[in-house]
Amino acid sequence: MPHESRIDVTFGDCDPAGIVFYPNIFRWLDKSFHDWLRTVGGHASICEKLGSIGLGLIEAQSQFRRPLTDGDVLIVSVAVRERGSKTLSLTYEGSVDHRLMFVAQETRGLFKRTGDAMVAAKIAPLGSL
Amino acid sequence: MPHESRIDVTFGDCDPAGIVFYPNIFRWLDKSFHDWLRTVGGHASICEKLGSIGLGLIEAQSQFRRPLTDGDVLIVSVAVRERGSKTLSLTYEGSVDHRLMFVAQETRGLFKRTGDAMVAAKIAPLGSL
Amino acid sequence: MPHESRIDVTFGDCDPAGIVFYPNIFRWLDKSFHDWLRTVGGHASICEKLGSIGLGLIEAQSQFRRPLTDGDVLIVSVAVRERGSKTLSLTYEGSVDHRLMFVAQETRGLFKRTGDAMVAAKIAPLGSL
Amino acid sequence: MPHESRIDVTFGDCDPAGIVFYPNIFRWLDKSFHDWLRTVGGHASICEKLGSIGLGLIEAQSQFRRPLTDGDVLIVSVAVRERGSKTLSLTYEGSVDHRLMFVAQETRGLFKRTGDAMVAAKIAPLGSL
Repeated sequence: MPHESRIDVTFGDCDPAGIVFYPNIFRWLDKSFHDWLRTVGGHASICEKLGSIGLGLIEAQSQFRRPLTDGDVLIVSVAVRERGSKTLSLTYEGSVDHRLMFVAQETRGLFKRTGDAMVAAKIAPLGSL
Repeated sequence: MPHESRIDVTFGDCDPAGIVFYPNIFRWLDKSFHDWLRTVGGHASICEKLGSIGLGLIEAQSQFRRPLTDGDVLIVSVAVRERGSKTLSLTYEGSVDHRLMFVAQETRGLFKRTGDAMVAAKIAPLGSL
Repeated sequence: MPHESRIDVTFGDCDPAGIVFYPNIFRWLDKSFHDWLRTVGGHASICEKLGSIGLGLIEAQSQFRRPLTDGDVLIVSVAVRERGSKTLSLTYEGSVDHRLMFVAQETRGLFKRTGDAMVAAKIAPLGSL
Repeated sequence: MPHESRIDVTFGDCDPAGIVFYPNIFRWLDKSFHDWLRTVGGHASICEKLGSIGLGLIEAQSQFRRPLTDGDVLIVSVAVRERGSKTLSLTYEGSVDHRLMFVAQETRGLFKRTGDAMVAAKIAPLGSL
């Protein structure tokens, strides 16, 4: 079952056209992901346990169906789409009053530092996430 | 030839993992697009001429190759990938010291208000953009 | 009685020191102000009625008492401190678990366009706000 | 002599009133401060040397004189106003075409972790900053 987060869209999220400045939608995807992680321990605790600096992004995309505006109560749902050996694929839907405003996808990896570089580690330790 | 914008990555663009919080990368794509529009009159003037509220987003995606950090001098290039009758597809590359940090794509439409709705208008009037 | 807004602090609101990047606190003040305006009609409707482009900022300041971090449930209260003939002074408090994290003050005016300039209009029409 | 940073104001920095959403101005103060620190080694290196998690904020304020808009080339100057034993007071000015758009002040401390708490340490080690 997908996890849901609620976002109250506000004036400052919008641009001179009066609609949400789209990078904020990616900000809300990330928030929804972290809200969801919180239900299984939280990002900081998971990273500490796995010796990782973060569940970072490999790819992100969104298809915008309708413009969001000041005052919208946005519900963002997040669910796992696919689990690779080193990647976690997530799918998102954003709705206002049950109307679909956007869909989005993220691919994330479990990043570790090795010297100066950062590598994607195996995500198996994430278990049932 | 692609248009180039320079972004000086700063502390506040980065997250607790010490790397750029990824929605900022989409913010920089939008900035690069608007920098480019400025060379042909600017967004406000183009929209006024065409009776449009904005050259808004239909879709956006990015593939992140290397993490950006505080102090990076990021060069973002933008170029037209494809012109549909109602859409403009753009392609972006972000580099630091000639190393590719991300690639990205946007699909934009020319939005107009018709009553309560917003529709994508024909982009032909954009001409040689 | 002050109006209260709830902010769920998330990972992306924080900087490489692991604490909230402070401009976000001003973003949350503005959100709280707009949440409060919504209870008396909302910013867009108020501005339309008064022929104003916005209840904009003349001055803003904040004293930061304790660092906010990922996962904090922040309650921001907003109240009117003083009503001038052309200004509205607001006072804010931000708390987590009843511990005071910051206090802040804003002075706002009702801006109108007159030709190319913007002027602060009399705020009397705001009435009992 | 004050340090100067250049900010190219863009569409996405502006709100539905068509003027810069004011928290972005604080974001640019912080950027200017970090640009300045970079001329004396950079924030990360200074913090590592001093065992600090960051040169964080104790107080920040700004007086907004004129609205900033899309396309403005903003020059932000930063200078030390006062050095306390545990605080560094900074003063900022933001100009476009030599017209003053805002003035601002920050008070910063050198924060260290001691167990679960964070304390402001003596800033003497910052020396000639």
